[in-house]
Amino acid sequence: MNILDIINKKRLNSSLSKSEIEYVVRAYLDDTIKDYQMSSLLMAICINGMNQDEINYLTDAMINSGETIDLSNVGGATVDKHSTGGVGDKTTLIVAPIVASLGVKVYKMSGRGLGHTGGTIDKLESIPGFKVDLTKKQFLSQVNKINLSVVSQTANLVPADKKIYALRDVTGTVESIPLIASSIMSKKIALGASNIVIDLKVGSGALIKNLDDATELATIMINIGKKYKRKVVCLLSNMDIPLGYNVGNSLEIKEAISVLKNEGEENLTNLCVALASHMVSLALEISFDEAREKVINTLKNGDALAKFYEFINFQQGRIDEMNDALYKYDVKAPINGFLTNIDAYIVGCYACEIGCGRRSKEDVIDYDAGIIIRKKINDYVSTNDIVFTVFSNSEIKDFQRLLDSLTISSKKIELPPLIYKVMS
Amino acid sequence: MNILDIINKKRLNSSLSKSEIEYVVRAYLDDTIKDYQMSSLLMAICINGMNQDEINYLTDAMINSGETIDLSNVGGATVDKHSTGGVGDKTTLIVAPIVASLGVKVYKMSGRGLGHTGGTIDKLESIPGFKVDLTKKQFLSQVNKINLSVVSQTANLVPADKKIYALRDVTGTVESIPLIASSIMSKKIALGASNIVIDLKVGSGALIKNLDDATELATIMINIGKKYKRKVVCLLSNMDIPLGYNVGNSLEIKEAISVLKNEGEENLTNLCVALASHMVSLALEISFDEAREKVINTLKNGDALAKFYEFINFQQGRIDEMNDALYKYDVKAPINGFLTNIDAYIVGCYACEIGCGRRSKEDVIDYDAGIIIRKKINDYVSTNDIVFTVFSNSEIKDFQRLLDSLTISSKKIELPPLIYKVMS
Repeated sequence: MNILDIINKKRLNSSLSKSEIEYVVRAYLDDTIKDYQMSSLLMAICINGMNQDEINYLTDAMINSGETIDLSNVGGATVDKHSTGGVGDKTTLIVAPIVASLGVKVYKMSGRGLGHTGGTIDKLESIPGFKVDLTKKQFLSQVNKINLSVVSQTANLVPADKKIYALRDVTGTVESIPLIASSIMSKKIALGASNIVIDLKVGSGALIKNLDDATELATIMINIGKKYKRKVVCLLSNMDIPLGYNVGNSLEIKEAISVLKNEGEENLTNLCVALASHMVSLALEISFDEAREKVINTLKNGDALAKFYEFINFQQGRIDEMNDALYKYDVKAPINGFLTNIDAYIVGCYACEIGCGRRSKEDVIDYDAGIIIRKKINDYVSTNDIVFTVFSNSEIKDFQRLLDSLTISSKKIELPPLIYKVMS
Repeated sequence: MNILDIINKKRLNSSLSKSEIEYVVRAYLDDTIKDYQMSSLLMAICINGMNQDEINYLTDAMINSGETIDLSNVGGATVDKHSTGGVGDKTTLIVAPIVASLGVKVYKMSGRGLGHTGGTIDKLESIPGFKVDLTKKQFLSQVNKINLSVVSQTANLVPADKKIYALRDVTGTVESIPLIASSIMSKKIALGASNIVIDLKVGSGALIKNLDDATELATIMINIGKKYKRKVVCLLSNMDIPLGYNVGNSLEIKEAISVLKNEGEENLTNLCVALASHMVSLALEISFDEAREKVINTLKNGDALAKFYEFINFQQGRIDEMNDALYKYDVKAPINGFLTNIDAYIVGCYACEIGCGRRSKEDVIDYDAGIIIRKKINDYVSTNDIVFTVFSNSEIKDFQRLLDSLTISSKKIELPPLIYKVMS
């Protein structure tokens, strides 16, 4: 098989066969296919797309590139949850303990943040002592004991995705629905859970900018799930504005705790309740309404919060040793009017710049850096009002780029829905 | 400027600005932009195209990447000629001495063959002693003395094209009209000739497979020429079947001589007369008919042939020392019928396999290897008739792949034109 023939086929918008796609994944992993050839093919896929068969072949080839985890002989109900990534998205930290407190096992492997979106592993590492790199045995045994463990992804799991993703990141080939779908689903399926709830973010702060693309992506992922006999539910949720009040690693841990204490911001709380309810409904095979009642109850009676602390303890995190940032700046509204937008992408980029994220893999994170948003959409703000508080361990002088995220108008807007739709 | 923004722009089918294109060419040459990023951008260009402005910017940036030759203070009329490459295409070896013998200066830098098409430099190197690497001074001084020199391209001329072309060759991004146009025209303009005749090959044995694409390519190249005040004439000529009888380096030198002796195959001779007439007409600013009369005359009276020998002598070639191949095989027709096709691409690939060309840059050429085609389209052939003679310095056992180039039918076909059209 010849990579040039395969590239030319995709360049001319033909479909690739199962054996061609298997060859590409195998030969790229063993360096027979070079980076510059793979990126040329990836761009052709970005522009000309792939049909469902090709996407299934690609997902399959990626799963087979490494080891997989078999949860079929683990007792009890299991569920996995994935977010396509957003700004202020700390939902995993909230829904995982909620669901685990209801007797459902949550085996979770998470990623680090890159670019303007955060990653669960970075957030957990802002807790002093927290261990994210458990062995497979420790991971499985912890879930057996307390129903919950969150660890960073191992190199052995879907290595082809790891290599291809790193290349996509530096070659402008990230925004491709077939490539996103196979990347997400190969990891979920290799991880072994038979029930998967996906929080598919849509908007300026997300990878997917519009509802049509999100619907297409959800459809493809649900179809992949069917092939592997996995139940997949996709919630298409708003990411035009940051989720909740806090953006930044330790700030998001604190906000997660406030939701688990039933004191959370409304949108964030509602999305977490919806995600957790779908997870519980799938795992326990009960109706969504029944699941929702259980979720609201475990939040009210403190079981979810207790499960969170138990989980942090088990992975050696010391919540009480978390610090505040050295510097704290209050940022006021530039003009009077109704706050009609807080652009999530701009906030995410600013957060990354002040140390919440990495611009390259070598960057060191300032775990205490971040932003608290003090106002909500349609609030009236005056130039005396604090709209943001910015935290950092180094001095900051420029707040203009953060203020650029705001739109302040003479009229309120109609609020977009928090959850656009649920697909399964 | 950021390469990812530029890649994304082209992925989404937007036009790139002058400064973006200049940045790409400069940053790729100095390795700031990596191969895997450039190939991703090149694929986006292949699929989404470029408008005339973008192509002009790209051509300009490539010209400025290296040194250029200024022929404006050289006395007399000058003309350059380029072929987009075909099988059995030895026209440069014929038209250059014709034109030079009529007092027009021909400064010619040529390439080596790669893949199924041959290169003029390889053909000249099949003559023992022939020197292709003159200094710039030797090159210019030889043209001053005898009106003609053919040398291999220097590294200093359009280095960006050299680097980009090598990458396109291994990433499936060769077949892009904007990239082909800027690659050809940047080299022609850097070489300094104010009159340029381009033999644009169309058909199975050429880069460009159909007349629509060829017309588009010609239009773009003529437009680039206008920007630089160069007169450009494009002949769109047939490359479905090999040009002339002989394919292979030394065999093509021999066939060139037979045309210069007025004993050439009809199609090859007619195409050479047409190309030379356009070159002379442009350079001497006379009508095509007047130029054609001169061309036919210089072929008849032996001046063109004498010029050819003078040119070979000046570059130290020893024609009389050329050898025949050790092995010679006559290949007969597989069935009876009218010969309706000799697929140029298949013949070219076979020629390359038996040693006429390189499959990779490290391959060594067998200069004596090649094929003589013994029959013409619409000839009746029987199984006793020799259709090919194959030459090689190593033993050959398989002729089937060569025979696969033939179509033999019960009826003659209507011959396609040799020259589809002339554009200027």
